[in-house]
Amino acid sequence: MRSLTAPLGARFEHPRTLRIPHSTLRIRFRAMSVQAIAWSPTGAVRIVDQRALPEAHIERDLESAEAVADAIRTLQVRGAPLIGIAAAMGLVAGMRELRAAPREAFLARVTRLVELLAGTRPTAVNLSWALDRMARAAVATPGDASAIWERLHVEATAVLKEERAMCRRIGEAALPLIPDGAKVLTHCNAGALATGGIGTALAPIYLAHEAGRAVHVFVDETRPVLQGSRLTAWELAHAGIPCTVIADAAAGALMRQATVDLVIVGADRIAANGDFANKIGTYGLAVLALHHGVPFYCAAPSSTIDPSLEDGAGIPIEQRSPDEVRTIAGRPVVPTGVAALNPAFDVTPARYVTSYVTDRGLVKPPFGASP
Amino acid sequence: MRSLTAPLGARFEHPRTLRIPHSTLRIRFRAMSVQAIAWSPTGAVRIVDQRALPEAHIERDLESAEAVADAIRTLQVRGAPLIGIAAAMGLVAGMRELRAAPREAFLARVTRLVELLAGTRPTAVNLSWALDRMARAAVATPGDASAIWERLHVEATAVLKEERAMCRRIGEAALPLIPDGAKVLTHCNAGALATGGIGTALAPIYLAHEAGRAVHVFVDETRPVLQGSRLTAWELAHAGIPCTVIADAAAGALMRQATVDLVIVGADRIAANGDFANKIGTYGLAVLALHHGVPFYCAAPSSTIDPSLEDGAGIPIEQRSPDEVRTIAGRPVVPTGVAALNPAFDVTPARYVTSYVTDRGLVKPPFGASP
Repeated sequence: MRSLTAPLGARFEHPRTLRIPHSTLRIRFRAMSVQAIAWSPTGAVRIVDQRALPEAHIERDLESAEAVADAIRTLQVRGAPLIGIAAAMGLVAGMRELRAAPREAFLARVTRLVELLAGTRPTAVNLSWALDRMARAAVATPGDASAIWERLHVEATAVLKEERAMCRRIGEAALPLIPDGAKVLTHCNAGALATGGIGTALAPIYLAHEAGRAVHVFVDETRPVLQGSRLTAWELAHAGIPCTVIADAAAGALMRQATVDLVIVGADRIAANGDFANKIGTYGLAVLALHHGVPFYCAAPSSTIDPSLEDGAGIPIEQRSPDEVRTIAGRPVVPTGVAALNPAFDVTPARYVTSYVTDRGLVKPPFGASP
Repeated sequence: MRSLTAPLGARFEHPRTLRIPHSTLRIRFRAMSVQAIAWSPTGAVRIVDQRALPEAHIERDLESAEAVADAIRTLQVRGAPLIGIAAAMGLVAGMRELRAAPREAFLARVTRLVELLAGTRPTAVNLSWALDRMARAAVATPGDASAIWERLHVEATAVLKEERAMCRRIGEAALPLIPDGAKVLTHCNAGALATGGIGTALAPIYLAHEAGRAVHVFVDETRPVLQGSRLTAWELAHAGIPCTVIADAAAGALMRQATVDLVIVGADRIAANGDFANKIGTYGLAVLALHHGVPFYCAAPSSTIDPSLEDGAGIPIEQRSPDEVRTIAGRPVVPTGVAALNPAFDVTPARYVTSYVTDRGLVKPPFGASP
């Protein structure tokens, strides 16, 4: 374990920290990884604004469910496990003022806020999974609004803690896949910034590094939102894990040169047959990995599995604004009037996946509710 | 043929035009495509500064071989055929002042400038092809420096005109590959901005459009330098050809959804066995195309063929500055101190190519000096 005050690697220079009203740099390093979400002392949802990384490190206290919904929609908070946690915690923060309301009014408001939060992003199933759990807990709790709110607070905290524990179990289950000297390719961010813990795809990398194994991570920059270069590289550098950012289109050449030993990615929703949605570009990587005989792993908590879907064809794919492709850092890179397509996710069929890693270990489809 | 003054498509808004000293907007539309290079009235090399597109449309008159070398190195001028033309013309512009020098001094200077220009970029063979031709013409011309210079001027103009004619012949040969209603995927820019004419990969698209066929082009944005979104989308929009920009990583999902009928790309160097170098990401596209049964075409002038190389393993791959990956529009997107890899090209083995299109028609390897 590294000291929290020791330098985390001479190659990393701490990014500029912006202080915003009612917010200071409060990120804690839990051993090796960043803490992406927490309760504030006043019961708000404290997040790192992931839009600003790596240039600025901004922490925000979200006081209402509406503020959390907005943060999810605008990618201040992203990553399938993390948006499930944020929604559960946002519901609690948003209900704080109604603890003295009549029970029925409280429950009606819970229903409205669950709908609001569930509607923010369509692809990751963790969002509806966490909110369904919260809604069931509310209805099942006897007594007045105050009692229900206390139960919701306990439930959201449990979601956070359980997801954090699941990250560690994913890391432990996948650790044998990361031998000493491994060169690992990952896409998007399935790390601490996408979860309540040490990540999903990055979890075994953190544990391998902690165990003293030499690991090198090739990080797809992941256009258009650049979660790879901005977030994955940032958190790996913080932990002192060597990494190299590449343009997404360079992955094929690296595999052809045999400089990639394995690919590991996260997931936003896994159907019963193992087909899974993840950040756009994952499917292309899976094809390249199969073509080159490179093992391809999908790492996700059980909360990512949607047993109600037979296969990947039923997974809703979010189409985000073309402006994410058409502009970079506010600068137009596509001529005015030219169209752009921006599907945020693609679906990788199960046959491309060497193995799935969940908190239950290395598993194979079909997946029921509790694989 | 469209009128030069008629609107080139209602969907396109003309980009902001910057005027710089001794330079005005002088781009001519030759029927449907942009003219990327020309002699200025004073004998300088007139180029469009491709770094500034699509935000600004800047034309520069390069007065010396050194200025042309710098423009090639910094990607003001890029595209394998175009840098060959630019180097030949730059040699002429750079020798203008030595027309009264002794023959031997003139020839010695030619040798030095050829070396300078040939060293600007390693991968495209068109550069050394054009410069070898110029150097041979210089030595073979009897008489004084003035006579040699005149011959060089004729030779460089011939290179420009021949490459322009080759583009048209490529377009005519590949036209049957682009049926009415075709959805075509391309990578980087192998269009008018990469050549002296109507492009290589884009040539049949221009001709299909001119012939009244409905064509839709999916344009890979082509990180890190964004030649797809900035240049290909710009010139297609100018010509009124419908196109949609996508993140490079979206190509796999499009092919899986069967929304791509064919892929056509250019080349920077083609070995005798058909292996070819092109913009990084081309190889990954070729694998995806093969996997999905999508035809994959490579279009290039004969000047791109390097019969001295048995296969693609001998093609030198330019490694450009990691800062092209680490920053976008001057804004850092990778944390300070984190490494990035930036190979500008990759090699696609011949077995992935459905057909090669050159000015000699649809051809198959092995390639000799004149396929």
